[in-house]
Amino acid sequence: GFFIFFLIKGWVRSVRAQKANLFLHVNDGSSLLSLQVVASSELNDPLLTFGSAVEVTGTLRKSPHQNQPVELEAQQIHVVGECNPVDFPFKIKERHGLEYIRQFPHLRCRTNAFSSLLRIRSEAATAVHSYFKENGFVQIHTPVITSNDCEGAGELFQVEPSGPQNEEEENFFSVPAFLTVSGQLHLEVMSGAFSRVYTFGPTFRAENSQSRRHLAEFYMVEAEVSFTQSLEDLTKVMEDMFRSATEHVLAHCAEDVDLFHKHVTPGHRVSPEGRLFNLAIDILNRSSEKFAFPTDWGCDLQTEHEKYLVKHCGNIPVFVTDYPYDLKPFYARDNQDHPEHTAAAVDLLVPGVGELCGGSLREERLDLLRARAGLEDTYSWYLDLRRFGSVPHGGFGLGFERYLQCILGVDNIKDVIPFPRFSHSCLL
Amino acid sequence: GFFIFFLIKGWVRSVRAQKANLFLHVNDGSSLLSLQVVASSELNDPLLTFGSAVEVTGTLRKSPHQNQPVELEAQQIHVVGECNPVDFPFKIKERHGLEYIRQFPHLRCRTNAFSSLLRIRSEAATAVHSYFKENGFVQIHTPVITSNDCEGAGELFQVEPSGPQNEEEENFFSVPAFLTVSGQLHLEVMSGAFSRVYTFGPTFRAENSQSRRHLAEFYMVEAEVSFTQSLEDLTKVMEDMFRSATEHVLAHCAEDVDLFHKHVTPGHRVSPEGRLFNLAIDILNRSSEKFAFPTDWGCDLQTEHEKYLVKHCGNIPVFVTDYPYDLKPFYARDNQDHPEHTAAAVDLLVPGVGELCGGSLREERLDLLRARAGLEDTYSWYLDLRRFGSVPHGGFGLGFERYLQCILGVDNIKDVIPFPRFSHSCLL
Repeated sequence: GFFIFFLIKGWVRSVRAQKANLFLHVNDGSSLLSLQVVASSELNDPLLTFGSAVEVTGTLRKSPHQNQPVELEAQQIHVVGECNPVDFPFKIKERHGLEYIRQFPHLRCRTNAFSSLLRIRSEAATAVHSYFKENGFVQIHTPVITSNDCEGAGELFQVEPSGPQNEEEENFFSVPAFLTVSGQLHLEVMSGAFSRVYTFGPTFRAENSQSRRHLAEFYMVEAEVSFTQSLEDLTKVMEDMFRSATEHVLAHCAEDVDLFHKHVTPGHRVSPEGRLFNLAIDILNRSSEKFAFPTDWGCDLQTEHEKYLVKHCGNIPVFVTDYPYDLKPFYARDNQDHPEHTAAAVDLLVPGVGELCGGSLREERLDLLRARAGLEDTYSWYLDLRRFGSVPHGGFGLGFERYLQCILGVDNIKDVIPFPRFSHSCLL
Repeated sequence: GFFIFFLIKGWVRSVRAQKANLFLHVNDGSSLLSLQVVASSELNDPLLTFGSAVEVTGTLRKSPHQNQPVELEAQQIHVVGECNPVDFPFKIKERHGLEYIRQFPHLRCRTNAFSSLLRIRSEAATAVHSYFKENGFVQIHTPVITSNDCEGAGELFQVEPSGPQNEEEENFFSVPAFLTVSGQLHLEVMSGAFSRVYTFGPTFRAENSQSRRHLAEFYMVEAEVSFTQSLEDLTKVMEDMFRSATEHVLAHCAEDVDLFHKHVTPGHRVSPEGRLFNLAIDILNRSSEKFAFPTDWGCDLQTEHEKYLVKHCGNIPVFVTDYPYDLKPFYARDNQDHPEHTAAAVDLLVPGVGELCGGSLREERLDLLRARAGLEDTYSWYLDLRRFGSVPHGGFGLGFERYLQCILGVDNIKDVIPFPRFSHSCLL
C-alpha cells in the first residue's frame, strides 16, 4: 500500500483516551463531518479539550469503521489554541438547544447545529444567485440608504452621522434618509432597461417586536420581470426559484439539512409543490373554522387565515392571488374588475411560516398611477419611469430567513441569521 | 430555407426611415448589442422614437451586414410605451458623458454606457462569489447594523427609528447602533469555526466629502483565512481573486468592457500582475520626487506616495507590507521586530485608484491583545475569541467600486454604483 501524508487544522469536537490509544474528532468547518484522528496515547496532552484548536500531521488511511471512509493516524499533534472546558459555554457530548446557544452570538458558530445552519445559508445564497444568473437576470445592488419611504411601509429607521450634531446643520444627505424596507422601486428603475433584474440584500423594519417571526434587519430576494402582463409569469418564477434553490441545498448540504430534520425538527419535510388560488375568501367563508378576524371581502388576510389556507390545501405552498385593490400599495396594478375591484397581487403562503413571498404586477399606466394621490410631489421620478418607454412589468420579494425557516423547520427566525437584530438587542 | 418566428421586446435605440424600409435597433438589456429590425415603411409609426418600448414579431434571418449575425424582418411592431423625444433627457445618436447622465439617476440605466456598467458590475459580483465558492469559503452575511464602532474608524452613521421619539425611551436597540464600516470583526467570529469565510455587502462612512473617490455607502469584499501565519498567504488570495474576477469579467462582458476602454477611457488596460514590497519607505526616500507629506519611518503613506510607488513599479498593482505598528488598529498582529516595530499588515495599491485592498494578520495572542488598552470593556467578546480555541488568522477587504474603477478606468466612483450616496445627495 501507500501512505498519504496529511495535515488537518481544526477544532476538537471529541476526545477519548484509551489505554494505548487516543481518539480525536477534528472539524475544520468545511462540513458537519469531523475527521477521526487516532494517536498513540503518548501524544495526549491536557490541553487537548473540546473546542481547542489543533494542527495534526500524520498519514491518512482507510478506516475500519463503516460510517467514515478514512481516518488520520497522527504522528504529531500541536494545540494552537487552548479552550478551558470550565469557562467554555458548550460542553462535550451535550446537544445544546438553539435557544441556549443563541445566548453566545460570538461562539455559537462552534456548535454543530449553527455551523450547519451557516453552511446551509451560504449554499442557499449561492443557489439564489445561480438561479437568477442561469435565467438571465442582472443583479442590481439596490441602495440601503434611501430618501424614499417606499409604501409608507410601517416603521422606518432613520440615518444621521453619530456624535454631537451641529444644530444649524441640515441632514447629512440634505433630506431625511432611511434604511430601505424594499429594493422594489429601485429595481423598477432598472426594469426600464433590462428584461429581468434582481437584488439580494439586507432590508430593515424598526418594528418594536421580539417575536419569533420578526427581525429589524433581514434579507430579501427581490426580482422584477419586464414585459409581463400575467401574474402566472411571476408565480412561475417564484415557484422555479423556490424549487431550484431547495433542490440545490438538499443536494449540496445533505448532512447539514439532515441534522435539522432529525434533531432540531424531527419529521420535518420540504415539499416544493405549489397550488394557485384566487378564491381564498370563499374557502375561508365556507369553512366551519371560527376565526378571530373577519373574513369578509375587503378585509386583509391574517396569520390565522393564512395558516388555515395552507392546511386546507394539504400543507403545501399555496399562492393567493388578486387581493382587494384598496388593501394594496399604490404601485399594484389595477385589475379594473367590477364590482370586486382587485389588484393583480399575489402572496405565497407556506407551511409553518405563513407569508414567504409577496408580489404584484406594477401599474405601468401613467394615467391610472397619477389618479392615485400624492405621487406628483414625492415620486415624480417614479412617474417618469411611466413617461418614458414604460413597459408592463411585475415582481416579488421573498424573505430569505423565512425561506430558511421553511425548509429547515426552524421555529425562531433568530436562529437562521448569523447576527440577529431586533428591538433591545444588537449584540456585537 | 426555413424561418424562425421571433418576438423581441425591448427599447428602441435607433430609428432610420428610408423610402421603402424602416430600420430599428431594439435592445432588451441582455447585452450591449441591439437587434436590427427591418420593416416595410408602412409599419412606421410616429410613436417609434428613441427610448420607446416595443414588441416586434417577425422572422429572423441571416443579416447581409458583417457586424451582425442576424436581423429581424418585422411583420408587426407594437409600441407599448411611448417616449417623447423632447422631454427625454437622452438624445438619439448622441454620446452623453458620464457626468451628464449622472444627473438622471432613474433613467441613466437606459444609456449604453451605464447599462454596460451595470452588466459588468453584476458579472463582477458573480465572479467574486464564484472565486470564493470554488476555493472553499463560506459566505457570511455580516450585519449592517452593529453596536461596535470597529476600529473607531472615522465617521459613523447612527440608526434610530424615524418619527417623533419618545423622550423617555432609550435607544431602539437599548444601546447606540451604527451602520457597519467593516464586517471584519464579525468575520473573525466565524474564523473560530470555519477555515475560510467571506462577506460581500454594503459598508458605510459618514464622510463629509463629495470627492470622486468617496461614497457614504459602498460595497466591500472581505475575507478571513484561519490557520495562516504569513502575509503571503493573504496576498496570494488577494491576487488570485483579483486575477480570477478580472478574467471572468473580460471573458463574459467583452463588448461592455470594450465600450469603456474605447470610448470612456481610451487606451485603458488592465494588468493583473502584482509585485510585493516591504521597503516602500526606502523607495520613497531614495526618490528625487518632492512630496508634500513626510516620508519618514512612522508616517503613514499618503495618496501621493501610493501613486509614486505604483508608477515606480511600472504601473502595475503593488503590495506594500509591514507598516509601523503604531499606525495600525488594535487587531493587527505585532511582528515584534525591533527596533522598527511593525505590524503584519498589507495594502494593495493599483494604478489610477491607489489603495484597493487593505489587510493584516490578526493578533491571535490573548496576552498581546490585552496589553493594548480599552478592550476589556467594549470588546470582551472579541477577547473571548482568543480565549477559546484561538487560531492564527488574517484577512483583508477590497473596495468593490474601486475595483470596478480600476478595471474600467472610470475616474469618478459615482459612475460605478447604481445609486450613489454621498454628503448632500441621496437621490431616489
